[in-house]
Amino acid sequence: MEYSEIVKTLEELVSLPIYAVIGKLKDTPVLLTTTEGKVNISILEGDKLRVLTKEPIAGSPYPKPQLDFIPFIRDVVKGKELHSIYITNLKGEEYEVASPKIRIFSLAYDDKNIAFIGASQNESSLYVIEGGKIRKLVNVPPFSFVTDISGDYILGFGILKGNPRSQEFFVADLSGNMRIFTPKDGSMNIAYYIKDNKIYLVSDYENLGESYWIYTFDFQKYERVEFPEKDIYSYKAVEISYNPDDSLIIAKRDGESKLFLNGKLLNNPSGIIAGATKIGDNVYFAASSLNTPYKVYKYDLKENKVDVVINNKDVNIGEVEYVKIKNENVEVPTWIIKSRKPNKVGIVYVHGGPWSEVDNSWDLLISPLVLLGYNVIAPNFRGSTGYGSKFNLMDIGDPGGGDLSDVIAARDYAIEKGIVEKIGIMGYSYGGYMTLLAVGKVPDKWDFGIAGASVADWVEMYDLSDSFFKGFMETLFMGKNLELMEDRSPITYVNNVKCPLCIIHSQNDTRTPLTPVLKYVQKLQENNKTFYLHVIPNLGHAIYKIDDDVDLLLPALIFLEKMFG
Amino acid sequence: MEYSEIVKTLEELVSLPIYAVIGKLKDTPVLLTTTEGKVNISILEGDKLRVLTKEPIAGSPYPKPQLDFIPFIRDVVKGKELHSIYITNLKGEEYEVASPKIRIFSLAYDDKNIAFIGASQNESSLYVIEGGKIRKLVNVPPFSFVTDISGDYILGFGILKGNPRSQEFFVADLSGNMRIFTPKDGSMNIAYYIKDNKIYLVSDYENLGESYWIYTFDFQKYERVEFPEKDIYSYKAVEISYNPDDSLIIAKRDGESKLFLNGKLLNNPSGIIAGATKIGDNVYFAASSLNTPYKVYKYDLKENKVDVVINNKDVNIGEVEYVKIKNENVEVPTWIIKSRKPNKVGIVYVHGGPWSEVDNSWDLLISPLVLLGYNVIAPNFRGSTGYGSKFNLMDIGDPGGGDLSDVIAARDYAIEKGIVEKIGIMGYSYGGYMTLLAVGKVPDKWDFGIAGASVADWVEMYDLSDSFFKGFMETLFMGKNLELMEDRSPITYVNNVKCPLCIIHSQNDTRTPLTPVLKYVQKLQENNKTFYLHVIPNLGHAIYKIDDDVDLLLPALIFLEKMFG
Repeated sequence: MEYSEIVKTLEELVSLPIYAVIGKLKDTPVLLTTTEGKVNISILEGDKLRVLTKEPIAGSPYPKPQLDFIPFIRDVVKGKELHSIYITNLKGEEYEVASPKIRIFSLAYDDKNIAFIGASQNESSLYVIEGGKIRKLVNVPPFSFVTDISGDYILGFGILKGNPRSQEFFVADLSGNMRIFTPKDGSMNIAYYIKDNKIYLVSDYENLGESYWIYTFDFQKYERVEFPEKDIYSYKAVEISYNPDDSLIIAKRDGESKLFLNGKLLNNPSGIIAGATKIGDNVYFAASSLNTPYKVYKYDLKENKVDVVINNKDVNIGEVEYVKIKNENVEVPTWIIKSRKPNKVGIVYVHGGPWSEVDNSWDLLISPLVLLGYNVIAPNFRGSTGYGSKFNLMDIGDPGGGDLSDVIAARDYAIEKGIVEKIGIMGYSYGGYMTLLAVGKVPDKWDFGIAGASVADWVEMYDLSDSFFKGFMETLFMGKNLELMEDRSPITYVNNVKCPLCIIHSQNDTRTPLTPVLKYVQKLQENNKTFYLHVIPNLGHAIYKIDDDVDLLLPALIFLEKMFG
Repeated sequence: MEYSEIVKTLEELVSLPIYAVIGKLKDTPVLLTTTEGKVNISILEGDKLRVLTKEPIAGSPYPKPQLDFIPFIRDVVKGKELHSIYITNLKGEEYEVASPKIRIFSLAYDDKNIAFIGASQNESSLYVIEGGKIRKLVNVPPFSFVTDISGDYILGFGILKGNPRSQEFFVADLSGNMRIFTPKDGSMNIAYYIKDNKIYLVSDYENLGESYWIYTFDFQKYERVEFPEKDIYSYKAVEISYNPDDSLIIAKRDGESKLFLNGKLLNNPSGIIAGATKIGDNVYFAASSLNTPYKVYKYDLKENKVDVVINNKDVNIGEVEYVKIKNENVEVPTWIIKSRKPNKVGIVYVHGGPWSEVDNSWDLLISPLVLLGYNVIAPNFRGSTGYGSKFNLMDIGDPGGGDLSDVIAARDYAIEKGIVEKIGIMGYSYGGYMTLLAVGKVPDKWDFGIAGASVADWVEMYDLSDSFFKGFMETLFMGKNLELMEDRSPITYVNNVKCPLCIIHSQNDTRTPLTPVLKYVQKLQENNKTFYLHVIPNLGHAIYKIDDDVDLLLPALIFLEKMFG
């Protein structure tokens, strides 16, 4: 295939916008969109989108329905994830509130204050912004997230008691006093909302390790949130989110999600719901599937019917299959997406995170591969989200161990079932890490590897990391376990690599820094290994622009074309 | 501009074939062609090309008119320039003669033997192949080339007396006895042909440092070759080549060349003649210009008219201007190619070599730039060929010195004349070296740099080089002058770099190896410089395939699009 055809396919696919409904401001649906080629906050006025923000944003809290503005963060140092904080209102008036230029992973707001957790090189702290001035309230454990602020209450969660297999929540006040809570030691808890002096949380404490439910906490007791309609109970959700403002539930299991109102199932397209909000008698939501790009829908509750409000191009990329692959005592939920014009070359796509998943939603990395003829096998290896907290925590203390064996099992399955004849491995971030590790540890299993934003050396990465990512690694490795880090680092196995590699890395990546990868590459070169290397400047780990997606993906597609085209 | 448009432009341009007439076999014109996307030996049967070789070739001697076969070399280790020797005949039957897998820069043949000079890590030697067996005749100085063999005479030239500012020629015999000749100490001589016991040579000994003429040598005296028709004398050629078999001359001056028969000018298109051969009353030749892709022509001597035999697409890329830019006491002959849709961004294109030039011939690197809107300024800095041996030798002992100042003068000229508003520098090989050196030594002069197959560190490169390239460097630096090498190495100035760089390098490059460039890149990263890096595997310094041109050029065009698109 000519490169120009490949580029055209890629450009067409990434230009299909992504939509997520994140809530409402004053009865106006608020979305994250990429209609203008970058991640923006937009609103829905009738059936028209209006983009509020001028430049791409890096994150925002959920909007507060009673307010007419929303804060957000923006990466202001070329992908280094050093953030400034802005506000935009419904008119699209945007201004900068503060510019701490530190990594901000979470922020929350009410009518008076903005709270955020920021990570510098040496510490993570909870801050508030008052009158444009930043005030540090208290240092927090590195793996902490703020979720809501309401008057004097600041809510958040994280690994607060030093146990990497549990998550507690906290309530702080504006003086910096911080109390830590958990309904049960060793349970996983995400406290996300304060309403009427009650804290709403998602917790697995009643079904430890299995599934989550919604609870309230009034500083005395935990109460399970019950719903008048009973559909939600028969659905057997593993993950659940609930908005007390409009009684909408999004419940998830086996890589699909459904929308419920007061517990009643609302008919919606198969795939994944990307947020919902209720305004009057209408529920607005976004949805997609592996085969269907994102669209925005309106559910008319009176007429009980769904309409598309913001459409998207239909792209039927392939045949989607969902299997559970047995590996040791684990069942690995795996998506297999078969190209309509398969070329017999398969790609094991390893998702990032590791606490993330491939579910039945539109995927910018998977869709071009499938459309160009590659069958994609996407395993949700142990450690993935979406299958309960026990499964989610199975990689703690064992990254690149059991999870890698699950990935290999998915590879073997694809070969044994004759789905593909040649097979490689590809991923971004943790998926890039797994790619480099796999080609070094089981070199005979792979015909190629494509590693984006990869980890080559956990030990050096630890030294280069800020407080947040040191915390991330201390969670993953159960402490600063340098021996395990070395044992699980691709650079340890670089001499074993057999297959050609394509390595793609952003120069300003502050999560998985470039320097160790350049050292890995030097070793590849010294050992006469075959590799492509593409370093891209002015870009970091998180991607906010469609064009940047193209820059990262195109080298991978050209690599595949060179090998198999 | 969308990437797909850029790729399409590039793919269309590089798909325009290159043609060079290298002689004839049994009254059949022999050409080098890229019609099948790779460098091949082809023949012209009537007005049809027939490709003889199956895979790309790396080089061949001139064909011998009385024979029906021709040897050639092919890179058999993925771009590492480790060569095997093959023969093809007029029927296109191809077989391998020997597979020494060393670097071969020159070979010659007659009806019985093939002679070649090969460079291993430690020595350069003259070899003959007899009955498929390779026999080493004698070690030769590293910068030596064999040009002809005829019976017991083996002819060649090079830097044979240790003076990097002169070239002598040699005659060896099949026992390995080797005699060195020069018409005058300090003169430049290329002995290239043996006919009727006379040696033909190109020499500047009568116009030392100025221009070349053709001479014969019968082991007693040198005799100037005179021509019956006098056009050639008024042309004032600076460089000249002459084929005694068919009395054709190609004479060159100021970046253009003309074709002469017996001294009489044959009307031919402006630009550069890429070889010619006479068969009966017809002269076949190839020609191109900066604005005209290669075509093959037939000159009918009886009717005195030129016809196109093999046509090519017309691509009028821009307006071509030729100026001489004053710098110190040097006039720098410079081509300025102005885009039809200029975007006010200019590129100083620095040719490789350094003993090479940009002349008025079709250029695969320049044409896409101009077509995409960039004005190109291509200086023939001191050291370039085409302007006499004195100019050619001005970089000896001073690489990256006076030549760089000429390049900078061309840059200043383009800015001062308002030809461009922003300006960068780009080159491959020695041009890549000059690019990295320029952005480090005069950082304020450049808005960007694009360096392909560059030299980052002469000192480390010297250690990594084989005998031939050690010889090359000892010529350029007048000996193993490590201090000068360090002083002229881009890595010495890496901290000064200000502008964004795009660095493109083949993994298997054995002339300008990747390792020092990776170290340079590590230093860029440590010093927070902005760079793209693209390493391409299974590819070396010399390019034999159109697709490989695309792989090397596309990242440069995307880099430019990111900066100025």
